Amino acid sequence: MTTELRDFSRLCIHTITTKPWSLAEATQGYSRAGVAGITVWRDALEPQGAKESGRMLRDSGLEVVSLCRGGFFPAVDEKGRQAAIDDNKRAVDEAKEIGAPLIVLVCGAVPGIPLAEARKQIADGIRTVLPYAESAGVKLSIEALHPMYADCRSAVNTLGQANAMAEAIDSPWCGVTVDVYHLWWDPDLEAEVRRAGRAGNLLSFHICDWRTPTRDLLNDRGLMGEGCIPIREIRGWVEETGFSGYNEVEIFSDAFWAMDQSKFLEKIRDAYLNHS
Amino acid sequence: MTTELRDFSRLCIHTITTKPWSLAEATQGYSRAGVAGITVWRDALEPQGAKESGRMLRDSGLEVVSLCRGGFFPAVDEKGRQAAIDDNKRAVDEAKEIGAPLIVLVCGAVPGIPLAEARKQIADGIRTVLPYAESAGVKLSIEALHPMYADCRSAVNTLGQANAMAEAIDSPWCGVTVDVYHLWWDPDLEAEVRRAGRAGNLLSFHICDWRTPTRDLLNDRGLMGEGCIPIREIRGWVEETGFSGYNEVEIFSDAFWAMDQSKFLEKIRDAYLNHS
Repeated sequence: MTTELRDFSRLCIHTITTKPWSLAEATQGYSRAGVAGITVWRDALEPQGAKESGRMLRDSGLEVVSLCRGGFFPAVDEKGRQAAIDDNKRAVDEAKEIGAPLIVLVCGAVPGIPLAEARKQIADGIRTVLPYAESAGVKLSIEALHPMYADCRSAVNTLGQANAMAEAIDSPWCGVTVDVYHLWWDPDLEAEVRRAGRAGNLLSFHICDWRTPTRDLLNDRGLMGEGCIPIREIRGWVEETGFSGYNEVEIFSDAFWAMDQSKFLEKIRDAYLNHS
Repeated sequence: MTTELRDFSRLCIHTITTKPWSLAEATQGYSRAGVAGITVWRDALEPQGAKESGRMLRDSGLEVVSLCRGGFFPAVDEKGRQAAIDDNKRAVDEAKEIGAPLIVLVCGAVPGIPLAEARKQIADGIRTVLPYAESAGVKLSIEALHPMYADCRSAVNTLGQANAMAEAIDSPWCGVTVDVYHLWWDPDLEAEVRRAGRAGNLLSFHICDWRTPTRDLLNDRGLMGEGCIPIREIRGWVEETGFSGYNEVEIFSDAFWAMDQSKFLEKIRDAYLNHS
């Protein structure tokens, strides 16, 4: 059921994937390579600010798919939680400025805070930011992170949890992101993808691969085809829900960041057509 | 509801925890430290063989809690699957020889084999070995491994999956192991611990901690109290099922292996009483 990928019209790349490149280099590089979409990480906005970044992005002709990342809501005290709310509102401002219709949320976790409490703080945080996001025309997307990040990055670790949270929040401005790296191992994944689709909550789709061995918990993601994730099968489940958005390549990799990024982009294009 | 740990009568240590020690050094060291139980890894048997190891263990007065590890059932061809069956039968022989009533199964996974197929091969493998284990009076325990090991160590990654598999196999000689390191992040953990208890399937309980940051996917486990796992809470859930077996300390850690192991054992004793 999975569609064949024959061109780059649904290929989006995350700026973090080509981290050594500035936003200008990324927009030029992606455009030259025929990539259609870009997801912008906030660190790529910093040097020139959101306003100038927005100009660059509009000039590039790339479609801005999302802004990464909001979230990190849990904190040990009220002051910390308020700082997170404020920062998420700034992310909404930036998303609006660059024309991103979506902010991906890495929801947050703190070693001292029990997971159940962290999950409550996450839902509370999203609810608090949501009216501001709605008024800016920006959606918030809950991304479940791999359980190996449950200590300090996200207390939301399965698509089932993300779905339940989005359904409880129950707003057209809040949904979920499916990232194969975080979710591929889950025996309930197919059912939860369908559930996200039925609820109208499936907002974005991220791809990369899981290397064996994985040498680093953070920065050793593989290019599609280098690992064991059944990317095409999962993409099929996503497409069967009616999702027709971008396939977003999000790779953190010390090895690939050490390469010439134009050559890496060539590898991404090949892997996208042949292994996604 | 969690009991207070006031002595070492329910403390078991895995030989891998003090990997630099030979089995002789471990039995002497644990006995001297007042540790009651030992779980023996197969590499610790190798130098002197299972028969001699059995003599050493009986002489030590330590209770042999389990043998680690059987499993690794999935393979790309029939020959590989048969080799796994044969190896698991050898593990049963060794368990019988050293007086271990239980073999912990690291069920296995292979990057090229889809997880659903690997899970089927695991269940088939357990069913094939089970009569041999039963005739030796040795139980087989399915240990769900953390999802970060789904590529090449185990396709069973939640207690829910382990429970379902044990229930389907439906034998008093097959159950599950709860290891806090693998399972602490799971929002369904409490319910699944109860389910294992109700089914009479909760056979053993492993403890250690999750360090932040975790520097290595395999060998950077923390000592109890060093990380974010709510060990005492999870132990309470386990005990509420009626489980009164050992609290088994299983730590893979390059840092601790580099220490004087007697000093490390002192740290384990302290952490056991104060943070478990």
